[in-house]
Order: sequence, then structure tokens, then C-alpha cells
Amino acid sequence: MKLGQSLKFVSQIGIFDWLPKYKRSDLADDGLAGLIVAIMLVPQGMAYALLAGLPPQVGLYASIVPLILYGVFGSSRTLAVGPVAIVSLMVASVLGDLADVGTVDMVSGALILAFLSGAMLLLMGLARLGFLVNFLSHPVISGFSSAAALVIGISQLKHLLGFDIPRSHLITETFAHAFTNIAQLNVPTFAIAMLALTILLVWRSGLPSLLARTPLPKPVMNSIAKAGPLVCVVVTILLVWVFDLGGQYGVSIVGEVPSGLPPLTLPSFEVDVISQLVPAAFLISVVGFLESVSVAKTLASKKRQKVDANQELVALGAANIGAAFTGGYPVTGGFSRSLVNFTAGAVTPLASIFTAGLVALSVVFLTPLLFFLPKATLAAIIMVAVSSLIDLKAVRTAWTYNKADAGSLLVTFGAVLLLGVEAGIVAGAILSIALYLWRTSRPHVAVVGRVGKTEHFRNELRHEVQTYPSLLAVRVDESLYFANAAFLEARLLADVADHPDVTDLVLIMSAVNFIDGSALESLENLIERLRDAGVTLHLAEVKGPVMDGLNKVDFEAKLQPGRVFLSTHEAHRLLLGADEIGDVSMKLPA
Amino acid sequence: MKLGQSLKFVSQIGIFDWLPKYKRSDLADDGLAGLIVAIMLVPQGMAYALLAGLPPQVGLYASIVPLILYGVFGSSRTLAVGPVAIVSLMVASVLGDLADVGTVDMVSGALILAFLSGAMLLLMGLARLGFLVNFLSHPVISGFSSAAALVIGISQLKHLLGFDIPRSHLITETFAHAFTNIAQLNVPTFAIAMLALTILLVWRSGLPSLLARTPLPKPVMNSIAKAGPLVCVVVTILLVWVFDLGGQYGVSIVGEVPSGLPPLTLPSFEVDVISQLVPAAFLISVVGFLESVSVAKTLASKKRQKVDANQELVALGAANIGAAFTGGYPVTGGFSRSLVNFTAGAVTPLASIFTAGLVALSVVFLTPLLFFLPKATLAAIIMVAVSSLIDLKAVRTAWTYNKADAGSLLVTFGAVLLLGVEAGIVAGAILSIALYLWRTSRPHVAVVGRVGKTEHFRNELRHEVQTYPSLLAVRVDESLYFANAAFLEARLLADVADHPDVTDLVLIMSAVNFIDGSALESLENLIERLRDAGVTLHLAEVKGPVMDGLNKVDFEAKLQPGRVFLSTHEAHRLLLGADEIGDVSMKLPA
Repeated sequence: MKLGQSLKFVSQIGIFDWLPKYKRSDLADDGLAGLIVAIMLVPQGMAYALLAGLPPQVGLYASIVPLILYGVFGSSRTLAVGPVAIVSLMVASVLGDLADVGTVDMVSGALILAFLSGAMLLLMGLARLGFLVNFLSHPVISGFSSAAALVIGISQLKHLLGFDIPRSHLITETFAHAFTNIAQLNVPTFAIAMLALTILLVWRSGLPSLLARTPLPKPVMNSIAKAGPLVCVVVTILLVWVFDLGGQYGVSIVGEVPSGLPPLTLPSFEVDVISQLVPAAFLISVVGFLESVSVAKTLASKKRQKVDANQELVALGAANIGAAFTGGYPVTGGFSRSLVNFTAGAVTPLASIFTAGLVALSVVFLTPLLFFLPKATLAAIIMVAVSSLIDLKAVRTAWTYNKADAGSLLVTFGAVLLLGVEAGIVAGAILSIALYLWRTSRPHVAVVGRVGKTEHFRNELRHEVQTYPSLLAVRVDESLYFANAAFLEARLLADVADHPDVTDLVLIMSAVNFIDGSALESLENLIERLRDAGVTLHLAEVKGPVMDGLNKVDFEAKLQPGRVFLSTHEAHRLLLGADEIGDVSMKLPA
Repeated sequence: MKLGQSLKFVSQIGIFDWLPKYKRSDLADDGLAGLIVAIMLVPQGMAYALLAGLPPQVGLYASIVPLILYGVFGSSRTLAVGPVAIVSLMVASVLGDLADVGTVDMVSGALILAFLSGAMLLLMGLARLGFLVNFLSHPVISGFSSAAALVIGISQLKHLLGFDIPRSHLITETFAHAFTNIAQLNVPTFAIAMLALTILLVWRSGLPSLLARTPLPKPVMNSIAKAGPLVCVVVTILLVWVFDLGGQYGVSIVGEVPSGLPPLTLPSFEVDVISQLVPAAFLISVVGFLESVSVAKTLASKKRQKVDANQELVALGAANIGAAFTGGYPVTGGFSRSLVNFTAGAVTPLASIFTAGLVALSVVFLTPLLFFLPKATLAAIIMVAVSSLIDLKAVRTAWTYNKADAGSLLVTFGAVLLLGVEAGIVAGAILSIALYLWRTSRPHVAVVGRVGKTEHFRNELRHEVQTYPSLLAVRVDESLYFANAAFLEARLLADVADHPDVTDLVLIMSAVNFIDGSALESLENLIERLRDAGVTLHLAEVKGPVMDGLNKVDFEAKLQPGRVFLSTHEAHRLLLGADEIGDVSMKLPA
């Protein structure tokens, strides 16, 4: 990097921006927001680690150093980084397959994934490849999130029901197994799960209005409103402990969680394991980045702040590399906790650093208390958290506006359920690109005529317009490129065949933004074939950049006697003459 | 198929079109053209079979029944079907890999490939998927052909030099091996090869002008001009026979070629072999179809005839299935022989049926004469035939007009040489699609102003135009879709930030051909964010189909107080008032 670039890069590191301006008064806001997020994060971190197939402490470790690193490097002021549901599911899916065949154990696989995905994010950020995520369309993301939420929810069934259900890529298989083995239901586990779900749902839907009627100060109210998962954890731990549900009744509990700060870990660098994990790490990076950057942008725009996609890549890269060296697993900016952080009043990333400190204190002092925590409680927390990701409204909206979008959404949704998480998102992305190409390969082509006595020309099928027998004006509503060149050539020749009196064809290029080499060849063909049919091809309204390109290959000479007109109106005036088109204004001296 | 469709399908079968109109006078033309093509085809068929790694008679078998079937079903009048160089190379490449590991022997593998590729072509034709080939851009095809010609030429080195060179995917390896083992050079073989090359090149470049000076009738002249390969074959057979070069001097010869009509064969249907060959068969189908249909179109347009891409798929499908059941290998319409057939005066596909009959006679009666044919002669025929495929001019043209096209061409060329034929064309196709997406993801955006006192608005950077401080008119030169939505949102916000006095932003949509769901969301975002900044968004020149879509989601209500104007001029007139823009004509009552 040159000096200028280095300086620019350093100036984008978040902490150099916010720390010098830090005000003492912000401290209380950041502290409170940090506390509230920590209250959510401790149970969520453990729950997501469980979802990823990892021991609960891994989720806590991933909630310390990565948050600090993001706080230093990130460009968002209020993004809350840490374990999230979808990334955890993807980790479970990829490592589960490898662990089944004994290639790698889950914990060390998670470190490798975190390291690879961190390195990729960092490199993509330094190479300024943030734009790549734009190639995932909204319908694909929406279908993916809904399906992933469903898969996540269903993966927790076994914890809710209290008997083992073999991991399967097909949700129908999971349901069938659960149904046929329902006799194995562990009633106390199921009862605890139902209790936890009830607490969470009531807390989420009923409590805020109740709290609003109390005279409690707002910070206290906020903390209480977000403490649902914590209350669940405390209540169910007490139940298990008091009634000895773990021992006697077979309720599955978390058990011994090692206490102490995160260990220093070194991801293993076995080449064949790494090469197997690279594609998955790439997808985890892309999906994680996408979730993170869209939350960050939403929050930033509410406060007129800016988020730089490439700086976000660097910061998330640093956070994941941090996770890899401190016993964690892949992290990203999560939707729900970021929103909580924002509404709780976080002003700067110091809030996240507070959160990290509180999680660290929990790992050091509170883990003995978590021994009796039922896994069913964590499963309930996960299910409630992901339920908001299922977005049926998006399907309806897409269907109304654009069937192709609705198709991408549903195919992605179906592919995630039937083919798995990774294959599903890849299928969705390919489909939405294919649909785009398909659309541009058969462009809208309109024969246009003159609107009244104006200089405007519009589609003859949609407007009351005048056309002229010897002149055919055709507007092509797409750039000309290899995928539509043959289609257009055929279409224009057919148009000429349908208008036997035509001697001049004016191709209106107002919507043509470029012409690639294949289409240029096709145009040259067209000139010849029209000439053979006694028709001269002209162009009108050619855009500047397109004309520059045509001039390079001396296209105007090939067009002779055809011409390039500034406007469709000018083409009519000069090809037909002012009398013919009956326009008095044109008889005036220019 | 419904009755109407069946009738339409039957009516497209070529023979129902040309046979009823057949005139006795066409017979002489078709007969002569058929003879000239047969003179070329007998040596070429054997040579291409050799290139494909198959015994020479396979090339002859593939030149009988497939030609008749194409003649019956095809929509082109003058296409000459049969073995071609590039398809033969692809067959060699895919079967070579499998034969090396003993999965399948070459001859039965070739039958399976012909059957699979025939079935695919037929199905694609019935499903009307002919448009799919449009997704291979001209630069990709050009790069592919040039590289394939190079690979083909180099693969013949061993026959020219007379010692074995192990098959390799890398041409550098082949060269290195040839160079380091040059001591093994078989001098008589090399001498024969040089003689054959000399005859062929002189025949091609020098003979036509010599012949033109003779008083020979044109048909005889034509036959002689195309007999170069045949002369080579006769001369070198005589040399080998007279001097016993085969036995004593180790010149490699064709040997026993079984005589008799093509055998009836049944491709094997082993599932695992078939599944291994499916991807290769698909590529062979696509490449073969592409070569065929482009030749057919070129020739048809010279005579104002029509070629139907889907009917061509059906006819080539039938031809390949025919090849599979009569001991052949994949065939398609070849460039050079079709051109010869056309210029020799072929009027209908009866010419091809004559060719097939003559090749059949050769197989029955002439094969004993081919015993002493040196493989070096066939190699020389191949080399001269493919040399015309190497097209350096295409690189220069592409480079001048469009660097991206030139890039696709060169990458495809390099990928074919470095990664192999199949991977090369796939890489090229992916790259050209990626380049297109990249281009549309960062569209050209222009701030426009008014040209003089006209109703025309042009890019302020390219034209002398007038702009107004409170109104920013921006033209986006691309459809709005997921890949460019984020880019545009950022760009428009930046434009507004650069013009602090702006209160109205008019987005000119003349080049916007559709807006997908992602871009719609992005537009709705933009309205909000501009509103927060005190700027109203308006649209102008929205195309009919786009407006229909926007109306479905009641976009105009969301735009309020922003409006949709018919033209940019109208937007200026109504937003600024006639006085402001100083246009007298606007003060007149409408």
C-alpha cells in the first residue's frame, strides 16, 4: 500500500474516529446498553454454541475478544457482534458432516472455520470486494433466512422432546423420526421447554405494555424487558436443582462449564482439512457479512452515520481471527442484539466492549451456577429468537410485484430445506442471476410513433400515436450483448417483414447502455441483411459512451447510407421531410 | 403435443418442404456437390476418427447414416454434416481420460457419447431450448476455436514425427517431449508428412488461380480444386506401397480397414459409464450445435432461406442417434465442407444424401486400397484443415472495440490450453457472464441538463447544457436490479450531497427497462433517506411495462409529494415554472 492509501485505511479504523470525540456523558448510555446486551448474550451465546454442535463455553468465548476487536476496527457505532443463529447452523451443518466421518472434531473444526472465514473477510476487505454481496438478491436472502430459521427451529426438536433424533438434511425425516418415536418423550424435559417458551413469548409480547404502566425509570424498564432469556435460565436452573430433574428424571443439562477466561488456541493447519472447509468458510463469510452489513446500514441510516462495507469486512475479519485464537467459533453482527444495543442507547462501540467485559466476568464467576441449566431452555431461547426470521410477508410482496423474484425466494427456500444450507444459498444465487440473464436475453422491443404534434415518440401499442408507412422506428429496451444479439436480429428482420412498405428502419438506442462485440457483429450482419431487403438502417438517440465505442470501429461508415440521428424526432424530420410529418414548426428556419 | 403443435413440428421437418418442390434440373447440381464433398469427406472422415482416437472406419461410418438423417430432418438446405475437428478433439479428450483408467474402450465410449449427445440435442430441440447457445458470446467461441485448433494441430505432432508422444493436457509438455526425443524422429514418416503438407498448401493457395486459366468446365474445376486431400492420399499410398516404407522404414500406416457397410451397433447402457459421460456429452452437443447452426445461418442468409434453431437441434439429434446405432461417433455440421457444398452448387439436402451414398460405396469397395495409407498423411490433412480456425484478427478487433470482450477471448484461449477443452469453454462462458454482470452492477449515471431551448436533456459532462440549482436531473443508464441497487442508492445520495441547494431529484428512467424487487426496496429506502435530507424524489420517462409494475405496489403513493413525469422537460417545467427556465413557448396555454 502506498502512504496515502495506508493513511486512508487507518483513518477508516473506527476507534480513531470515535475515541477522540468521546464524551464523559456517553459513558452512562454505553454502559447501560452494554449491560442489557450482555444479559441477552450470555444465554444466547451458549444456546447458539449448542446449535452449532459445540460446548456452551465456546459461545461465551466467542462473545469476548471478537467484540473488542470489532469495537476497535468497525465502522458501525452500534453493531453487536457475536454468535448468531444462521452462522451457527452453517457451522453445525459443515462440521457435522466432517465429524460424522471422523475427519475433525467439532471444536477444532470450529477454530479452523473461524480462522478461514476471518482471513477471507479481511482479504476481501483489503481487496475492496465488499460489492460482491450485492449479487445476492433480496428474495434469495429472504428465502434463505426463512428456511434457515425453520431448519434451526426443527434442529432443536430433540432438546425440546428429550430424546435423540439423528441429524438429517431432510426436515421430513426429522419429523417422521420424532413422530414415530414420540413414546420416548421425556415429560419433564418437555414440561421445562414449554415453561421456557411460555415465559419467553409472554415476556416478548405482553411485558412491554405492562412495564409501560409502571413508574420504573426507562433504563430499568429496558433491562427488564430484555431479561426474558435470563429469567428462563434462572427459573429452569432452580427447578432442575430443587427437584433433581437432571439425575432422576433424565432431563438433559449443560453440566460442567469450565470457568476462567478464554484459552489461547491455535487453529490446526492441516492442509486437507482446510481445503475441505474453504468453500463452507466462504459461504459463512458471505452470509455472515451480509447479515451484519445490512443491520449496520439500517442502524447507521437512522442516525445519519455511515457504514463502509470494506471497513466492515476488515473489522469482521479481525473479529473472527480473534475468535479463532481464543477458543471461539465464527461470529458476525447479529440482527436482534444490534437492534437492542441501538434502542438501549448505545452511542459508541464502547458499549460492545462493556458487553465483552461482562461476558468475561460471567465466564470467570458464574459458570458453576450453569451446571443445572437444561438444554431444553437453550433450545427454547433459540426457537423464539429465530421465529422472527420467518417472513411470509416477503413472499406475498414479491409475488405481487414480480413473479420472478417470488420464484427465486421460493426456490431458495425449498433448496435450503431439501438440499441443505450451503447448496440452498448457492442454488438461489445462481437462479436469481439466471433469471436476470433470461430477462435481458429477450428484451422488450417497441415500435414507436409520434405523440400528437410533440417531439415525443411512444410505443404504438400503449399510446395513441402516428406512424408512417416508409419509416419504422423501433426502440430496443435493453443493452445489446451476446445473450440477446441473435434474438434482436431475428425480431427486427421480422418487424421489417411485417411492414412491406418500409424503406428506413430507425433503431432508437435511448435504452441501450452498451453494445458488446457479439452484438456489434450482429448489428453489422443486420445492416447487410436489411440492405439486401432494400431497407436502410439508421440509429437514433445513441448515448455518448456507446457512440464512443462505435466510433472506434468506424461504425458510421459501415452504416452508410444509414445515419446516426441525435433524436427520433430529427430522424423523422430528415427522413420524411417536414411536409410529410405535417409539422409547421419544422418549416421555420432553424 | 397437441395436434396443432404436431402439425407444426411435422411441417418443419425439412424433407416435407424441399422434396415436393424438387426439380429435375436440381439433380445435376446436387449430384456434383455431393461428389465434391465426398471427395473431401473420405480422407477427412478417417483423419478426424484418428484425431478422436478411433479406428479410421469409424469416421467413414459416421459419414453415411447421419448425413441421410440430417437430410431428412434438417432445416438447412446446404449444411454438410459429418465428423468435424473440434468435436473429434473433445471426444478424444473425454474418452482418453476414461480409457487410460480402463473404464471403457474408445469405440464403445464413442457410441455412448453419440447416443447421449443425440438424445440431448433431440430433447433440447423438442423443449425449444435452442436459445441457450446464445449465452456463449462470440469472443468465447472465437477463443475456444483458436485454442482447440492449436491443441488439435499439436496432437498430430506424433504422427508427423513418427514417434510416440504421451497424451498430455499441457501443450508445453507435448512440445518438451517432442523436443527432447527428437533423436527418435522417423525420417521417412517426416518426409511423407512434409510432402503431404506441401501438396495440401499448394493445392489450397496456388491451384485455384492456375485452374482459372485453363479452359476446363467449372464443375470439373471445382472437383479438382477440392481434391487436394484425395491427391495426398493417393500419392502417399503409392509411395509407401512402392518403396515398402511401412515394413522396412517403420512408417506408421492405417492397415486393415474392414470393408462393408456400417455394422448395426447398440450403445452400451452401463449407468456409471453413462453418468460419467453426461457432462462431456452436453458440452459436445452445445459446441457441435453452435458450430453447425452458425454455419447453417450464414449459408441460409446468403440465399434468403431460413434456419430454425430448434429444428436444427432435432435434426442433429437424429443424426447423432443414427451414428450411435451404425458404428459412428458424434457428428455435426462442419464449417469447411458446408461451405464447399454451398459453393459447389448444392440446392437441397439431396446433395448430402449423394455424399452418403458415395462414402458407402468407398467403404464397400475402396478400403483394401487404404491399407498403405500413412497416418502422417491424415495428420497433415487435419493440420491444414484446422489452421483456418486460428483467428488472430478476432483478437485485434475485440481489443479495439471492447477490452472486456478481448479479455474473455484470451482467457478462454488460455483456459483451453491450460485446463483442457471442456474446462476451457466452461471457464470462458462463466467469465463472459460475470463480465456482463459486473458491467451492469456499476451502471453509467449522468447528471443531465437542458440543450439550448430545446426539449432535449443531455449529460452535463459531454454537452453544453443548462442545469438549475434546486433541481437535479439524473439519468441512470441501466435497469435497476439486485446487483446495482446498493451502488445506485449510494451514488444518488452522494450526488445530492454534492449539490447542497437541491430540493428536487428527478430520476430519468428512459434507460431503465425493469426494476426488480431488490431495487424497488432500495428505491423506497432512497425516498425516505432523501426526504430526511429535505429532498423530494421524482421519476420521469418511466417506460410502460416498468410503470405497470410500480402501479401494482402503489409506488406513486409512496413517492408523494414526489411525482412521475412523462418527460424530463415536463418535470422541469412543472417543478421550476416556465419563468425560471426562461422558455416562452411554455407560457402559451397548453
